[in-house]
Amino acid sequence: MIRVLFAAGDSRWDDWKSPLRTAFAEAGLDCDLAQHHEPSQVDIIVYAPNVPLQDFRPYTNARAVLNIWAGVEGIVGNETLTQPLARMVDPGLTEGMVEYVCGHVLRHHLGIDTQITGQDGVWKPQVPPLARDRAVTILGLGELGGACATALVQLGFPVTGWSRSQKDIAGIRCLSGDDGLTKALKTAQILVCLLPLTPDTTDILGSAAFGHLPAGAVLINPGRGGLIVERDLMAALETGHIAHATLDTFRTEPLPQDHPFWSHPGVTVTPHIASETRPATAAPVIAENVRRAMADEPILHLVDREKGY
Amino acid sequence: MIRVLFAAGDSRWDDWKSPLRTAFAEAGLDCDLAQHHEPSQVDIIVYAPNVPLQDFRPYTNARAVLNIWAGVEGIVGNETLTQPLARMVDPGLTEGMVEYVCGHVLRHHLGIDTQITGQDGVWKPQVPPLARDRAVTILGLGELGGACATALVQLGFPVTGWSRSQKDIAGIRCLSGDDGLTKALKTAQILVCLLPLTPDTTDILGSAAFGHLPAGAVLINPGRGGLIVERDLMAALETGHIAHATLDTFRTEPLPQDHPFWSHPGVTVTPHIASETRPATAAPVIAENVRRAMADEPILHLVDREKGY
Repeated sequence: MIRVLFAAGDSRWDDWKSPLRTAFAEAGLDCDLAQHHEPSQVDIIVYAPNVPLQDFRPYTNARAVLNIWAGVEGIVGNETLTQPLARMVDPGLTEGMVEYVCGHVLRHHLGIDTQITGQDGVWKPQVPPLARDRAVTILGLGELGGACATALVQLGFPVTGWSRSQKDIAGIRCLSGDDGLTKALKTAQILVCLLPLTPDTTDILGSAAFGHLPAGAVLINPGRGGLIVERDLMAALETGHIAHATLDTFRTEPLPQDHPFWSHPGVTVTPHIASETRPATAAPVIAENVRRAMADEPILHLVDREKGY
Repeated sequence: MIRVLFAAGDSRWDDWKSPLRTAFAEAGLDCDLAQHHEPSQVDIIVYAPNVPLQDFRPYTNARAVLNIWAGVEGIVGNETLTQPLARMVDPGLTEGMVEYVCGHVLRHHLGIDTQITGQDGVWKPQVPPLARDRAVTILGLGELGGACATALVQLGFPVTGWSRSQKDIAGIRCLSGDDGLTKALKTAQILVCLLPLTPDTTDILGSAAFGHLPAGAVLINPGRGGLIVERDLMAALETGHIAHATLDTFRTEPLPQDHPFWSHPGVTVTPHIASETRPATAAPVIAENVRRAMADEPILHLVDREKGY
């Protein structure tokens, strides 16, 4: 009997319990999944960083903490956690992110906002350029950024990708390092931000970075709010140097009702809905990691606590 | 010396003359491209159906008429035309259409309209379903419909395609015939119309067809206005059976300013900009057909005057 603690929020329990139990059964695992177990008897913790459980010391026998979020910045610095930590790599989360990014890139590329809001009865045929003439840059080439980059290339966009460590992805101009970041920004007619939030990436997009963008660039941030210096973004929007920002993540969520992003005509706020972990597709990933942890095999998607992701 | 008559509109001459001359030179063709030639001396006619030239009888030596539009319904019934007629298959036109269709399918799939127009300061996190759970049907599986179907499959949508003659395209559920049309409509949460306009397809989307759609379906028509019975579409929008129509083509273009489509909240009018033939990518296609016509080889993209496309 493997005791699995579900410490990922009361509100998520109803969505997760049945897919998890199904996935455990299909993996041949005899699990007791519950929201409460005696800490010293817990084998595996299924976790979300926004729950009351922040002290892992009583979980003396736990073999692994399996995060249901892709982002781990809320737990990676927790010194009471000594067990291996896995971030979530969920095919459903990746799919949703690819759809959001492709949808909003195409929206800006095609000028769909004007089509929606400009129905004034005047026939103004203006054919947009082709994707092949619209350069897109993606910051972050992990599971999400890499999948989005590949999907955008399939749609015809020339894509530059930038990441901490040099990557090599077919069809993508891959850059890294400080010089690489400057180069990646200089050609970014549309900039998509999918970096993990770490001490190195916090505030990475401020006035200096924005200054490298071509005039009239569009920013799409479904990554993390802390990557962006909000005041610098507002300034770049005011001058028009950044033509539009579509933001899905914020330093404070929910975004306060009086935040200037809500009312700025150059900002579209989406309420952290770009993508989410889907229990149906994520539960088998968790089941596989439960199996690995109990069999003393290395778990998948292990977080490097040093790098922070 | 090959005499090529440019009969595709005075307004297009400036855009086309240089790409055509470049493409002819690159193909090793010694062409005299002009807007005026003595009719009996013309070898090839580069054509658009909306120009004054409608009587082809004086062009006694012309070997081919090369349309610069994908649609040929404006010339296919012209009985003075006895030469082979080619429709335009332009890689740039196809790319633009794929971008428009993917952009508007994703727009409706993700609920981007509400994101753009609903910036009211209230945090309402509603994650959309995945593309894998959003069935799309494409009517027409020719150059444009087939390319759009494949691109939508790459984005994760389950795609059904319907065409006059049975097709077989990897990853697409291909249907044909009257029964097939009913089946294709029944699952269409998003319906994309890219059929050619022929006597068989005129008015194909009227109240009977709309009745087969699931409630709340979305219609996207970048094909031809004549495919749709406008009054029936308005009725389906009024009841909400069709939730939204994004229309790029109309029976009368420009769409008159007082047409109810402009003001209906469930309609987005785009002014026939989904895609257009791009001189840079289309000129080499024309050059190849000039070469073939002069060498007595079969031309590419020959129109079947019987079928009408």
